[in-house]
Amino acid sequence: MSRKDPMTAIIAVDTHDIRFPTSLALDGSDAMNPDPDYSAAYLVIRTDAEDGLEGHAFVFTIGRGNDVEVAALETLRGHLVGRDVEALLGDMGAASRMLLHDSQLRWLGPEKGVMHMAIGAVVNALWDLRAKRAGQPLWLHLASLSPEELVSLVDFRYLSDALTPEEALEILRAAEPGRAERVARLQETGYPAYTTSPGWLGYSDEKLERLCREAVADGFPQIKLKVGADLDDDIRRLAIARQTVGPEFPIAIDANQRWDVADAIRWVNALAQFDLAWIEEPTSPDDILGHAAIARGVAPIRVATGEHVQNRVVFKQLLQAGGMDVMQIDATRVGGVNENIANLLLAAKFGVPVCPHAGGVGLCEAVQHLSMFDYVAVSGTMDGRMVEYVDHLHEHFVTPTVVEHGRYLAPSAPGAGTEMLPASVAEFTWNQSQAVAR
Amino acid sequence: MSRKDPMTAIIAVDTHDIRFPTSLALDGSDAMNPDPDYSAAYLVIRTDAEDGLEGHAFVFTIGRGNDVEVAALETLRGHLVGRDVEALLGDMGAASRMLLHDSQLRWLGPEKGVMHMAIGAVVNALWDLRAKRAGQPLWLHLASLSPEELVSLVDFRYLSDALTPEEALEILRAAEPGRAERVARLQETGYPAYTTSPGWLGYSDEKLERLCREAVADGFPQIKLKVGADLDDDIRRLAIARQTVGPEFPIAIDANQRWDVADAIRWVNALAQFDLAWIEEPTSPDDILGHAAIARGVAPIRVATGEHVQNRVVFKQLLQAGGMDVMQIDATRVGGVNENIANLLLAAKFGVPVCPHAGGVGLCEAVQHLSMFDYVAVSGTMDGRMVEYVDHLHEHFVTPTVVEHGRYLAPSAPGAGTEMLPASVAEFTWNQSQAVAR
Repeated sequence: MSRKDPMTAIIAVDTHDIRFPTSLALDGSDAMNPDPDYSAAYLVIRTDAEDGLEGHAFVFTIGRGNDVEVAALETLRGHLVGRDVEALLGDMGAASRMLLHDSQLRWLGPEKGVMHMAIGAVVNALWDLRAKRAGQPLWLHLASLSPEELVSLVDFRYLSDALTPEEALEILRAAEPGRAERVARLQETGYPAYTTSPGWLGYSDEKLERLCREAVADGFPQIKLKVGADLDDDIRRLAIARQTVGPEFPIAIDANQRWDVADAIRWVNALAQFDLAWIEEPTSPDDILGHAAIARGVAPIRVATGEHVQNRVVFKQLLQAGGMDVMQIDATRVGGVNENIANLLLAAKFGVPVCPHAGGVGLCEAVQHLSMFDYVAVSGTMDGRMVEYVDHLHEHFVTPTVVEHGRYLAPSAPGAGTEMLPASVAEFTWNQSQAVAR
Repeated sequence: MSRKDPMTAIIAVDTHDIRFPTSLALDGSDAMNPDPDYSAAYLVIRTDAEDGLEGHAFVFTIGRGNDVEVAALETLRGHLVGRDVEALLGDMGAASRMLLHDSQLRWLGPEKGVMHMAIGAVVNALWDLRAKRAGQPLWLHLASLSPEELVSLVDFRYLSDALTPEEALEILRAAEPGRAERVARLQETGYPAYTTSPGWLGYSDEKLERLCREAVADGFPQIKLKVGADLDDDIRRLAIARQTVGPEFPIAIDANQRWDVADAIRWVNALAQFDLAWIEEPTSPDDILGHAAIARGVAPIRVATGEHVQNRVVFKQLLQAGGMDVMQIDATRVGGVNENIANLLLAAKFGVPVCPHAGGVGLCEAVQHLSMFDYVAVSGTMDGRMVEYVDHLHEHFVTPTVVEHGRYLAPSAPGAGTEMLPASVAEFTWNQSQAVAR
């Protein structure tokens, strides 16, 4: 380093094991996850810059194992501390590849599970810092980049049989005209949300009916119900929901990976009488051919998946095989903003709408930026698109999502929305004595 | 617990972060892994039984991130300590599901990456303990179980569109006649090995030629060369190898995931002149459709993969799609012995030979048991089957593999072969000060 200006460097990567005891109220209960404790393996990147700005991000988990995710964040500290901030943030494609192509860490995936999600959180924290330094909310910051800059963020390895850099550039250039108008429209009217709040399996029929009524009254364009534990229960609950929201209102269902292929086809067709918007996660998120068989077996009901899809290679195949009619990206499952840009480009190439997974802790705060960026700079449309919304735990964030009349209002604060309040971090930091007490 | 006999319980789960500085000699260098430090996230399960027997197992990694894998092992301690040993070992299907179906841990995969490998190591350690208590080497212990017991070990979730429990039972029953003869034959003649020792990218042409000559002289039936970094280099090295071993001797090649689909087809066809036994890991292990396209594009050269295949669901699809002509299971990548039994059954169902991945640290020691079990109780044949062999680091194990005249001798010592010498554990236990020094 022989620069004349004093270099701005990363001086610390702090990690926190944060867990909320959500299992006590059965919020978030579904056929595969009966008692989640919504948690965040949280990191803060600090620099010696005078601006005092930090990058905040996290991996969402549902409790046990959050400590393993924190350990994965810790092991990445050596890749970050001492680095030149300007150099790192100035080429976020290279920053992402520096982490993803570490050949020793790659063995732990490759590009999947605990290590991949940790790398994704680091990438997202760097984006949070970069957007704060630019004084822009992340969606607007990304939507201000040129098509060439955006393409440079994407790792096209293993994608070229479905999407080349040239094709990605074409998609992005085609969306350049009208960017300013779409930014204005977003700032004025926001982005569609749909709600899963009524549909958790742990809720009573009365609560289900009340929450369905409230969802319609609140202006949401769609609701979603969890299914898959018991067919008779599902029929009863869907009948209540359909009667409550009326015949035209979209109802999606979500099986959270509960079924094998034949079971999925049988079960979904037994529920088809309720006119379903989509069936989400019918089987293993790894089963590309299974999703394709289910899509054929339940058409015209659409198949949606993605919250557990490990990386762009699996998304690519789900699209190639016709196994996914709705792409549900997640902000903290894959390799961060960069890999999700690849996913958005794949969806655009194959003409599939992106309706992100959210809820949990901070997933709404994070993923709204990606959908808004998609609208402005990639797909250019909100038609058939919406971001999941669950009204939990937003109060712990510095800039919580604002959903009004069924729409996410466009964030205006600089950053990625992923910074938690210091008091919440302190109060909900996990320690082993809690584990013993519960 | 209201038993009259005093319960035998698990009293401790010890973990060790063990790393060998193999990168210093370029052993194990390939197109994707230029400088691996062969490592083991190692665990020991101890009980209060008077026999003093312990269960030993590990996850193989290549260096950085081994600490994350150790953290994953640590987080499973609470699932084990205090458990009734007889109950746990007496129903290994239930033991495996208890770990794999933990809904909170499952979020970190599901069934892939760091957490899944840690669960696999725990399952393998329990099998090591069980085989030691039975006084049998693992392969013989497994091959002594009834078809019904073996089927009870397998988690058929997400498999039923390709393999049902009834079909698995049929396969196992068909192999029952002749088990005793095959045990005797194994104990007499061992199991075929092939060697990767000549083929690492970091070796000089002279060393390549010498090691090729030695491999033939040692009686190995096949060698394997790493390829994929530079086509001209590959052509030169394959010419040397082919000239050294003669026109009839099988040579396989291994690209370690280096290519996209079109590159793989082009590159392999450019090497086809050297009469190749198989192309291994041509692209991402997640790319099922890609493997199928490559298999079509390079036929009659066979496609082999598996060392990075995350679980049985991906193996299932590789078989369904025609993307894998040779299945290369790995002892520490998936959910342990139980999931590898599922993989062996899938291979038998689809008529594909299993030629396991080995090498690294202790992978030969571990996986030989699975191939020998397959021969006795599943496929019933060694035709076209062989286990990879690399002559590294065996000296650190209590019962190292013995390979003579190109064949693995059948282990006779009780257990799974996965126990390291205490002195080796002590000497190669990693600490952060080493990280700074190197």
